[in-house]
Amino acid sequence: MFRLFRDLSLPYNVVQVRKMCVSAAGRPLVLQIWGSNTGVGKTVLSAGLLLSTKDPTLYLKPVQTGYPTSDDSAQINRYAPKVHTLTLHAYEHAVSPDLASSLERSQTVTDVALCSQTEQTISHFYASTEHKHTSRSLALIETAGGVLSPGPSGSLQADIYRPLRLPALLLGDANLGGISATLSAYEAMCLRGYSVPGIVMFAEGTGLLENESSIQKCVKPETVVFRAPELPPPDISLDDYFRDTQVKHFFKKLHDHLRYTEGERFNALSQMKEESQRIFWYPFTQHSQLGDITCIDSAHGEQFIIHKDGHKLQPMTDVIGSWWTNGVGHGDSETAKAIGSAAGRYGHVMFAEATFEPAFELAKRVLDGPGAGWASRAFYSDDGSTAVEVALKMAFRKRAMDSPARRHLPVRIVGLAGSYHGDTLGVMNCAADSDYNRLQTPWYQPLGFFFEPPCAAIRDGIWTVEMPDWLGAEHEIVLDGRDELFSMERSHKEYEDRISRSLDEILGKDEVDIGALVMEPVFLGGGGMKIVDPAFQRALVDACRKRGIPVIFDEIFTGLWRLGVESGSQLLGREPDIAAYGKLLTGGTVPLAITISTHNVFQAFAGCSKKEALLHGHSYTAHAIGCAAGVESLKRYDALKQAQGIDPNIQYWNEDTAREISTYNSVKSVTTIGTVLSVELGGKGGSGYAATGAYDVAQELKDEGIFARPLGNVIYMMCTPISHKAHCDMLLARLTKALQREGVKNVNTSDRS
Amino acid sequence: MFRLFRDLSLPYNVVQVRKMCVSAAGRPLVLQIWGSNTGVGKTVLSAGLLLSTKDPTLYLKPVQTGYPTSDDSAQINRYAPKVHTLTLHAYEHAVSPDLASSLERSQTVTDVALCSQTEQTISHFYASTEHKHTSRSLALIETAGGVLSPGPSGSLQADIYRPLRLPALLLGDANLGGISATLSAYEAMCLRGYSVPGIVMFAEGTGLLENESSIQKCVKPETVVFRAPELPPPDISLDDYFRDTQVKHFFKKLHDHLRYTEGERFNALSQMKEESQRIFWYPFTQHSQLGDITCIDSAHGEQFIIHKDGHKLQPMTDVIGSWWTNGVGHGDSETAKAIGSAAGRYGHVMFAEATFEPAFELAKRVLDGPGAGWASRAFYSDDGSTAVEVALKMAFRKRAMDSPARRHLPVRIVGLAGSYHGDTLGVMNCAADSDYNRLQTPWYQPLGFFFEPPCAAIRDGIWTVEMPDWLGAEHEIVLDGRDELFSMERSHKEYEDRISRSLDEILGKDEVDIGALVMEPVFLGGGGMKIVDPAFQRALVDACRKRGIPVIFDEIFTGLWRLGVESGSQLLGREPDIAAYGKLLTGGTVPLAITISTHNVFQAFAGCSKKEALLHGHSYTAHAIGCAAGVESLKRYDALKQAQGIDPNIQYWNEDTAREISTYNSVKSVTTIGTVLSVELGGKGGSGYAATGAYDVAQELKDEGIFARPLGNVIYMMCTPISHKAHCDMLLARLTKALQREGVKNVNTSDRS
Repeated sequence: MFRLFRDLSLPYNVVQVRKMCVSAAGRPLVLQIWGSNTGVGKTVLSAGLLLSTKDPTLYLKPVQTGYPTSDDSAQINRYAPKVHTLTLHAYEHAVSPDLASSLERSQTVTDVALCSQTEQTISHFYASTEHKHTSRSLALIETAGGVLSPGPSGSLQADIYRPLRLPALLLGDANLGGISATLSAYEAMCLRGYSVPGIVMFAEGTGLLENESSIQKCVKPETVVFRAPELPPPDISLDDYFRDTQVKHFFKKLHDHLRYTEGERFNALSQMKEESQRIFWYPFTQHSQLGDITCIDSAHGEQFIIHKDGHKLQPMTDVIGSWWTNGVGHGDSETAKAIGSAAGRYGHVMFAEATFEPAFELAKRVLDGPGAGWASRAFYSDDGSTAVEVALKMAFRKRAMDSPARRHLPVRIVGLAGSYHGDTLGVMNCAADSDYNRLQTPWYQPLGFFFEPPCAAIRDGIWTVEMPDWLGAEHEIVLDGRDELFSMERSHKEYEDRISRSLDEILGKDEVDIGALVMEPVFLGGGGMKIVDPAFQRALVDACRKRGIPVIFDEIFTGLWRLGVESGSQLLGREPDIAAYGKLLTGGTVPLAITISTHNVFQAFAGCSKKEALLHGHSYTAHAIGCAAGVESLKRYDALKQAQGIDPNIQYWNEDTAREISTYNSVKSVTTIGTVLSVELGGKGGSGYAATGAYDVAQELKDEGIFARPLGNVIYMMCTPISHKAHCDMLLARLTKALQREGVKNVNTSDRS
Repeated sequence: MFRLFRDLSLPYNVVQVRKMCVSAAGRPLVLQIWGSNTGVGKTVLSAGLLLSTKDPTLYLKPVQTGYPTSDDSAQINRYAPKVHTLTLHAYEHAVSPDLASSLERSQTVTDVALCSQTEQTISHFYASTEHKHTSRSLALIETAGGVLSPGPSGSLQADIYRPLRLPALLLGDANLGGISATLSAYEAMCLRGYSVPGIVMFAEGTGLLENESSIQKCVKPETVVFRAPELPPPDISLDDYFRDTQVKHFFKKLHDHLRYTEGERFNALSQMKEESQRIFWYPFTQHSQLGDITCIDSAHGEQFIIHKDGHKLQPMTDVIGSWWTNGVGHGDSETAKAIGSAAGRYGHVMFAEATFEPAFELAKRVLDGPGAGWASRAFYSDDGSTAVEVALKMAFRKRAMDSPARRHLPVRIVGLAGSYHGDTLGVMNCAADSDYNRLQTPWYQPLGFFFEPPCAAIRDGIWTVEMPDWLGAEHEIVLDGRDELFSMERSHKEYEDRISRSLDEILGKDEVDIGALVMEPVFLGGGGMKIVDPAFQRALVDACRKRGIPVIFDEIFTGLWRLGVESGSQLLGREPDIAAYGKLLTGGTVPLAITISTHNVFQAFAGCSKKEALLHGHSYTAHAIGCAAGVESLKRYDALKQAQGIDPNIQYWNEDTAREISTYNSVKSVTTIGTVLSVELGGKGGSGYAATGAYDVAQELKDEGIFARPLGNVIYMMCTPISHKAHCDMLLARLTKALQREGVKNVNTSDRS
């Protein structure tokens, strides 16, 4: 293996896309050249394009095989000596790079390294042209082989370069069979979320085939198919070809088109951003205060690629998991394939009284996963809100069947203050009065008894449980650490006594019945990213069980490894009668939810008439596409079961740093559990949902390339269950920096006031 | 062009897949052979497999190009003379079939014809072996060129044969670049919903490449990659190759594997069917009455392919549109591509205060389509139920802002008896008391005033409007026909008077306020597939408007061409303040809904605090995958605007036949509008939701290969907006037959009773 960093020395240590500038009119145009097959003439295409401008040009060949017999950079320079060429990695064997790498026993070039080397080379080139006002500068990155040929690591090229998502120019195959080869390569690119502004077909010898017109009919309208002048036979030099006026004219035209398309793409983004503010009605948004909106061009892993003013794209790390949904990474190609296959095989098909593979597989995985040991039936619905409404209907019926004497009483639920179960009117009524629901509809009425829960957090470096007044005089419990907090043995007599007393009081009056306990196990998501003392929830579950009240765990937020465990119930040591799953269920792709229950709950709906059945259903119930995404995601999460063997609750965020943060001036408390880290800020702005306290920190983070969204006075970061610790460390470092700055500002402010 | 129906005469007139038997152990094995490229050796692979059995074999080449120089059937017979070979269409030019067809000016072979000819040839072969107890019978259908090579019509082969969805054996490419060619061909097959039990790679000369191991790593675990013995050079006869023991052994092993896999596939289907009854909790289903469930192996267009006992697959026409969702046909490849691209480009990304292309494009299309002229803002949610809950929140706020004096009063809605808006508790309260909601939850309370509407239908051949008692003494209005029913000029004084009187009475008492009129324009879907007299709804809208009550059109069912128009409001001549769209919005793929409103409604949420904003949102709000499916579907429906120029309300179902049916003994009335035909049966079984009246007819239809699901005493058929009239005619003929039989039975029953 040869390493050919011919004239560029780069520090290859970046894990993520950091800067990325894609150009348009007046700026360098950056394109990646892909082949529908090997040997279709990618290098000739590159040379032709590079010759079409007199402005600075870069030709980058990240991976070269068959070197030095084959040397595409050298070939480019033969025809276009002025082009700045660069080959990053070269292998002697003329086989696929992964095979060559293993034959030559060279150290594997990782995907991340290859991608970041490519990105840095482009940035370097871009910087070098920045002040030169060149209007037709061009950088081409030529791939090796076909679109799905493996790179040095064995990953497929189209996957390796996906984080950069450079505009793709695909070289088609003009031979017999070339329509199929070209279209299938094209579809593979599209399935990975690339944009392909052009496909080039070299005219073939007989002139009979018209592959380009067949192809044009089958691609998106924004993809233009070009017919390039026929190549001379392989044994004849290309010098004459490139000198030919017709050839020159073709490449100029092609260059013009690609540059124009790139410009139009940015114009469309600008226009979209402007028009969006006029046509969208955003959720949870006061439009009269709407500032600049975020224009997302694409996403990958935990990054958005957003459009900034002009012709710039910029990566931002999505630390809110796109409203707590991101499970397997944005734009994941395995998930896209699973989704595409389900769409092609079924679309959506009838579920009631039917069965099909993805719905069956997913239900089994949920029952055998978080439902293992207690759940026997799976009911599908569309989202978390509907899944909890279904859970309520299940619980109320169960209660009514078990306590016929209380059936005439109005039904209420028991819940926690600060809990959140969704925005449909039925589940809003299961949440305590708050800014979320008050004012929203005249129909809202809190139909429950809501206990103010004791919450645990790191305060000034120490894990403590803060006790609400109703639980007695003790103000807080100081813990040894996380292990004590989650110890199954820990209990608190005050919890049991007060809960029992309250429940008996409610039930004793015989004015209402309690149809269900509804709660998010261990963690309140929407309610402020807080850990509820597990000992308290254990006591609550036990007290309800004793009184025959069905127990619902709303695991939409907490379930499926959010808390570093498959189910929050593992941290409680208690199982529910009914549990609801959503969000992470489809890995961050489409809405789908599932409510699982015990056999006894299911049996409460048995009867001799349909009227007694659970008459709830959604048109797209158990849709195959969502279920297929679910199966793919749950397979991916399964790998975590092994990691959990080492640490019963997988920690993604460094707890030492969290303790450190909790001592900052501006910080009230810090919470870390599984994939979530949250920081409660003190001081300015109040502490309700509408608080603007964390706004400044979020703004600081934005400047650092981190997309955060405060929740009242809480700023939080969330990774996916399959994120690496190194990623979290990097984010935590930036958060620390932002908080430190914020702390200083706070002091200054109070000095002045 | 040659037509080579060598030894089979077939009536090529079938529009749909009618029978399809895919075999397993002990039965003929049917496979389709696909190439990742042209010239990779598909015919050698076919010959090798066909030689691996002594039982009856069929080789079918539906399309041959370069004939007679190339004649794959003849080549097969050269090595395997006993194989029954058949070529359906042969072209002289060695170019793609569509090009050859046009060069040879031959009549185009349509996709439907090619597919049904193939299907019939297989059925014929299958029938011929049926009683022979052959255990290794084999039929191979060899495609031409690569997987995405065009067929005679220009459609891509993988799309043409998709309705048959035969198990695919893919011949890979073992050359340099072959990993990419093979994987992209494989992905194109998967995206179209094919199952690929095997990929075969002929070993290449140098022995250096190990494409098969790279490929195996990237395909689904159920796809096995085989390395076949190396082929002799092209100029050497294959006789020796096929005589070689190693080669023979390989093909025997391959044959065994494919046969085994096919058997396992059916075993898995049987097992799934059995286990599903134990783990699923079906929507709207009384499990204690659950009989045989439907096992859906795949779907295409308007057909399910279902698994019957043993090793049989059987098509059934889905006339319920999979709970009213099917818009562009099941398993549509264009939609699958759009969905796959969005999944690969975004997954789901943050929407609040952000924008991205599919969400933007879809919102624009809905505002410019059904919202044209009145709506200015689009709010996304997950399904019909949530979209109507959002609409309620919008309307209530608007009313509160407009009528501050009535703000303290409890809020009710005005609706129609028989209306249905979904199953979440909030919208259940917007439906009149019925079997759907009574018993379902102790929280249900009908928070509305529900008018019994006058409904129109064909009764005994004549369009009439049946008047409920509260509207006066007149029992029914006889109409000239459909045109009179939908005439914008028609009005009825009784309607206006009674509605006004009722509204004034409610409002006058000052006990409650009316926050919204909520109704499905023109048609009640869940409420029994009934046409509401448009003149009545016009009067209702006008009366509410006059009193400042916001008007919500629930168009989840009625919108987007269900009624032969883009919006039900076109049939009423009245626009709402708020309207909700779902179901057909994504063409029948994933849940997604959109609520659109006027500028004035939007403005009611403006304020200086977030608390005044519409605090409603779902995690997957505006998910890119659903929006992309939406854009693709709405593009497809756009073609209907032209058709609508000819007929203001596109009729899919023959009205003469509908009139005829309405005269049957067992039929009370018939309704046709747009894509829906419904038949209300009279007599036995009562008329509520739980009625079993239409059960027998549905059963009869099932025997005819039609998947219907009665709605109380109503049996209905629904096509997609892009269905052909011929398709509806065929279905109507079968329905007529079933009803005639049912009619006779009814008479007999009453004779006996």
